[in-house]
Amino acid sequence: MSSRTLPTRARRLQPDMSFFDSADVVVVGLGAAGASAAIEAADNGAEVLVLEAASAGGGTTAMAGGLIYMGGGTPTQAACGITDSTEAMYEYLLRASGPNADPERVRLYCDGSLAHYDWLLAQGMEYKPEYSAKKSTNTPRDEGLIYTGNETCNEFRAHAAPAPRGHKGKAQGEDGGRMLMEKLIASATAKGVRIRCDARALTAVVDEAGAVVGVVARIDGEERCIRARRGLVLCAGGFIMNSDMVQRHAPHLLQQTVLNGNPNDNGMGIRIGMGAGAAVLNMHEGFVCLPFYPPAELVEGIMVNSKGQRFINEDCYHGRMGEAILRNYPEKHYLVIDSRLFHTMERPPLGGFRVVATGETIEELEAELALPEGTLAFTVDFFNRHARRGEDPLFHKHADYLAPLDNPPYAACDVTPGAGAFYPVFTLGGLHARPTGEVLTEDNEAIPGLFTAGRNCCGLPRSGATYSSGMSIGDATFFGRLAGRSAANAPAR
Amino acid sequence: MSSRTLPTRARRLQPDMSFFDSADVVVVGLGAAGASAAIEAADNGAEVLVLEAASAGGGTTAMAGGLIYMGGGTPTQAACGITDSTEAMYEYLLRASGPNADPERVRLYCDGSLAHYDWLLAQGMEYKPEYSAKKSTNTPRDEGLIYTGNETCNEFRAHAAPAPRGHKGKAQGEDGGRMLMEKLIASATAKGVRIRCDARALTAVVDEAGAVVGVVARIDGEERCIRARRGLVLCAGGFIMNSDMVQRHAPHLLQQTVLNGNPNDNGMGIRIGMGAGAAVLNMHEGFVCLPFYPPAELVEGIMVNSKGQRFINEDCYHGRMGEAILRNYPEKHYLVIDSRLFHTMERPPLGGFRVVATGETIEELEAELALPEGTLAFTVDFFNRHARRGEDPLFHKHADYLAPLDNPPYAACDVTPGAGAFYPVFTLGGLHARPTGEVLTEDNEAIPGLFTAGRNCCGLPRSGATYSSGMSIGDATFFGRLAGRSAANAPAR
Repeated sequence: MSSRTLPTRARRLQPDMSFFDSADVVVVGLGAAGASAAIEAADNGAEVLVLEAASAGGGTTAMAGGLIYMGGGTPTQAACGITDSTEAMYEYLLRASGPNADPERVRLYCDGSLAHYDWLLAQGMEYKPEYSAKKSTNTPRDEGLIYTGNETCNEFRAHAAPAPRGHKGKAQGEDGGRMLMEKLIASATAKGVRIRCDARALTAVVDEAGAVVGVVARIDGEERCIRARRGLVLCAGGFIMNSDMVQRHAPHLLQQTVLNGNPNDNGMGIRIGMGAGAAVLNMHEGFVCLPFYPPAELVEGIMVNSKGQRFINEDCYHGRMGEAILRNYPEKHYLVIDSRLFHTMERPPLGGFRVVATGETIEELEAELALPEGTLAFTVDFFNRHARRGEDPLFHKHADYLAPLDNPPYAACDVTPGAGAFYPVFTLGGLHARPTGEVLTEDNEAIPGLFTAGRNCCGLPRSGATYSSGMSIGDATFFGRLAGRSAANAPAR
Repeated sequence: MSSRTLPTRARRLQPDMSFFDSADVVVVGLGAAGASAAIEAADNGAEVLVLEAASAGGGTTAMAGGLIYMGGGTPTQAACGITDSTEAMYEYLLRASGPNADPERVRLYCDGSLAHYDWLLAQGMEYKPEYSAKKSTNTPRDEGLIYTGNETCNEFRAHAAPAPRGHKGKAQGEDGGRMLMEKLIASATAKGVRIRCDARALTAVVDEAGAVVGVVARIDGEERCIRARRGLVLCAGGFIMNSDMVQRHAPHLLQQTVLNGNPNDNGMGIRIGMGAGAAVLNMHEGFVCLPFYPPAELVEGIMVNSKGQRFINEDCYHGRMGEAILRNYPEKHYLVIDSRLFHTMERPPLGGFRVVATGETIEELEAELALPEGTLAFTVDFFNRHARRGEDPLFHKHADYLAPLDNPPYAACDVTPGAGAFYPVFTLGGLHARPTGEVLTEDNEAIPGLFTAGRNCCGLPRSGATYSSGMSIGDATFFGRLAGRSAANAPAR
C-alpha cells in the first residue's frame, strides 16, 4: 500500500465518475462508533457498507477495557442495590463533560441511558450484577459495575448524588472492549451490514451544492470512489497517532507520555470532514491518565509538588490526577506514603512507581527530595492533624481515604512524567457536530450528507480534567447510533 | 445594514459573475496587520484595495497601547544603554510564543527585527530613546522602551539574557496604538492603496481548483463581488467579540472577564478562511490580563490561593498572573500586603482592587479570609524568613521585589475574577498559516490565493501563560508585511 498522503480536500462529483461500490449509508471505521452507526442504520432500513482501514474491525475500543458509562437505575445498578437517578447522572455528566459541555448532548445521553443499556443487551452484551467496590481502573474480574470517575469527590458530590455507573460486559479484566466489539460486529453482520476491510478512506466526494455524496478510498492499492446515497458517517477515531497533528494542536500531550490508540487514530476522519467544510472543536484537549491506583490503598498517600505543597484531593479519578500533573510539566511531583502503605509497592501501579527517597522522619524525606526546608514537614503535619479527625480542609479528600501518615519510615515515589510512571494519553478534539451526528461548519450549518460519531468528533467528553472512564465508549455507541439513524433517514441524493 | 449572518463557505466563481471592484491584492481589515500587508503589497508593485468593515481604519490596534516587541540591539535600545542580541531575543520569544511555538516564525521575526524597526521609522514612527525602568503595563509618558514580559523572571532568564524590548512610539501613555495606525494608514494611502470602509467581507470566491480569486463583501447594503487577481489577505482580527465562537472554542475566557477588542473581532476572517478550506490552530488559547501593577510596588506583595499557598513568582508579567488565576476559576485568590504597601491603594491597579480583609497579625488576616488555620501563617513566615536573605526558594521571585511582609497591619485584596479586579481577555487562535502568510489546510497544503496575518491567524503569540506585550502588534506588522509581499508576488489568476 502506498504511503503517500493525499490531500483530504473534498473532490467534486464528476458526471463521468465511476463508482466501485455504493450503499445508502457508508460508514468509515469499524470501532464502537462505526459498528453502532452501522447497526442502527440497518435497523432503519438502510443498505450499509462499512470501510475499515485495518484488516479487521475493532478499532481502539477493542484495545480498551470496555467500560460504558450508564446510569439512572440500570438493571445492573438495581441488582447491586445501587440507587441512581437520571437527574443525578445528568448533573454529574454535565460537569464531567467539561467547560464547553453540550447540555443537549448530555441530556440526550442521560435520558436515553436505560434504553441504551437494553440496546446493548439486544446486541448480545451481558452485565454481571456484581458491584466492584474497590477503587480501580476497571473491574478486576468480570464484575459488571464500578465507580469510574470523580463522582464521590467533594467538587462533584456537592452537585450530584454519586453512583457507580461504569458498566463492563461479562469479560475478564481488560477484555471488555474486545468482547464488546465482537458482539457489535456480529450484530452488524447479522443485520446485513457489509464490511470492507483494508479500505482506507481518503477524502469525501461532494456535489455542486457542497453536499457529501460519497467517499474516495484506497482499496487493493487503487483509489476507488464509493457512492453514499444518503449519508457518509465518519467514525474513524481520534488523532493521537498523528504526531504532526498532535504537535500542532495538543503539544502538551507529547511530554513523556504513551500514545494510547490504534495506528489508525491518525486523524484521517477529522481531516476528511474538514476537507468537506467542517469545523473542529477542542483540538487541544486530551485524556491524560496517571493510574496511581490500583492498589486502592495508595489513595491514602498524598501527592505533593516541588514546593512540598499538596495540590489536589488524592481520591480523584486517575485522569484528573494525570491532567493536573502534566499541565505543570516538567515540575516534579511525588506520592508520599508511610510504612503502613509500603506493601502496595509489591504490586505497584501500572507501569511501576519508582521510590526515589526514604526517611525515618518527614524532615529526612524532605531533605532527600531536596524540597525547600520545612515545606513538606508543614504539609504532612497539617494533613495529619486534620486527617486524624477525618477532615481535609484544603482539598476535602473523602473520609474513606483519610489516614494520617505517621508510621515511619516514609517514602516518596516520583510520579513526574518521564520518571517511570505511566501516562497514557489520547485526544478528545474532533469535528463539530450535532448530537444527532450532522457535521457542522463554523457557522453551525449542517453539511448535507455528512455525519460523525466517536472520537472522530468532539462528543460527550470534552475535558481531561473532568473525564470519567466509560464516557468514550458510551459516547461512541450511543451517538454512533444516532448518527447512523440520521444518515439512514437523510434524503437520497 | 442587514444583520443576517451569511454562511462563510466559499462561493464558486461563475462565468457570469459580475465584479464590483478588483485589485491585484485585496486586504480584508485595516488594523495593524492589514495596513502593513497593504503597504508591503504596494511596495511590491501590486495594486491594492483594503476592505474595512468599520467606518474608519484602526482596528483593535488603535485601541491598544501600541507596544511592539523588537530587539537584538535596536537604535532605541542602544541609545538607552541596553545590550541585547538576536539570539537572546530568539531564545526568549521561542518560550514566550508558547508550547506549540513555530520556530521558523520566531526565527524570521527575530532575524528581521532591526530591519522592521527601520521600516516602522520609514512609515513615520519615532521612538524616544528613553527607558522606562519601573514595572508597568506601558510606558507612562512617551518613553520609547520598557520591559513588557517575563524576561527577568527566573524561568525565562535562565534561558535568555533579559533585555527590555517593548517599543512604544512617541505618544503619551496608552495612545501608542492610535498613533501607529495613523502613521500606517497615512503611509498606505500615500502609496496609492485604496481603502474602502463600511465594506464587510462575507466569504471567499474560489475557482474550480479551489484557489481563492476574490471575496464577497457587503457594500451599501448589497452583496458585491470583488476580484483579487493575485491574493486575498485576511487581516480581520480575532474572535473575542463572537460569543458563540468563544463559548465553543475558549469558554474559560468568558468567566467574569472583560472582552478586549473592537466589535469587528467577530471571527469573520477566520470563518472566511475556514470556508475556503483552511485549518485553525490554538482556538482555545487567549491572553488573560490581570494588571496588578502599576503600581510596581505591589509586586512586593504575595499572591495566595484559597489554601493559603503561594502559586507563582509575583514578579511575572500580568498576563502570566491572569492566566494562572483564571485557569483555576472560581477558586479564590488574594494579594497580601503589609502596611508598607498600603499607600499603593491610593492609586490602585486598573479596575480597582478591593481590600476584603485586614489584620494586626497574619493570623487575624487568615481568619478574616476564612483560610484554613495556619496555612497563610506558614506561607508568610516561610516567605519572610527567606525574603530577608533576598531569597525565594519556592518561586524565585527576583531579588528586586523581595521584601518581607512584616510591617503590621496586613491587608488582602480579592483578585478572583468577578471580585472587582479587571480581567481583559482576547483570543490567540486563528487560521493555520505559514509565517509568510499562505493559509494552510489541515494537510499543510497552501490554499492558492489566500493569505493571512495578525490575530486572524495563529501567529507569533500562542499562549496566554507566556505572552509578552508587543507580541501581537509586532506579529501583526511584521507578518502582515510578509503576507502582503507573498500576495503581491503570487501568480495572477
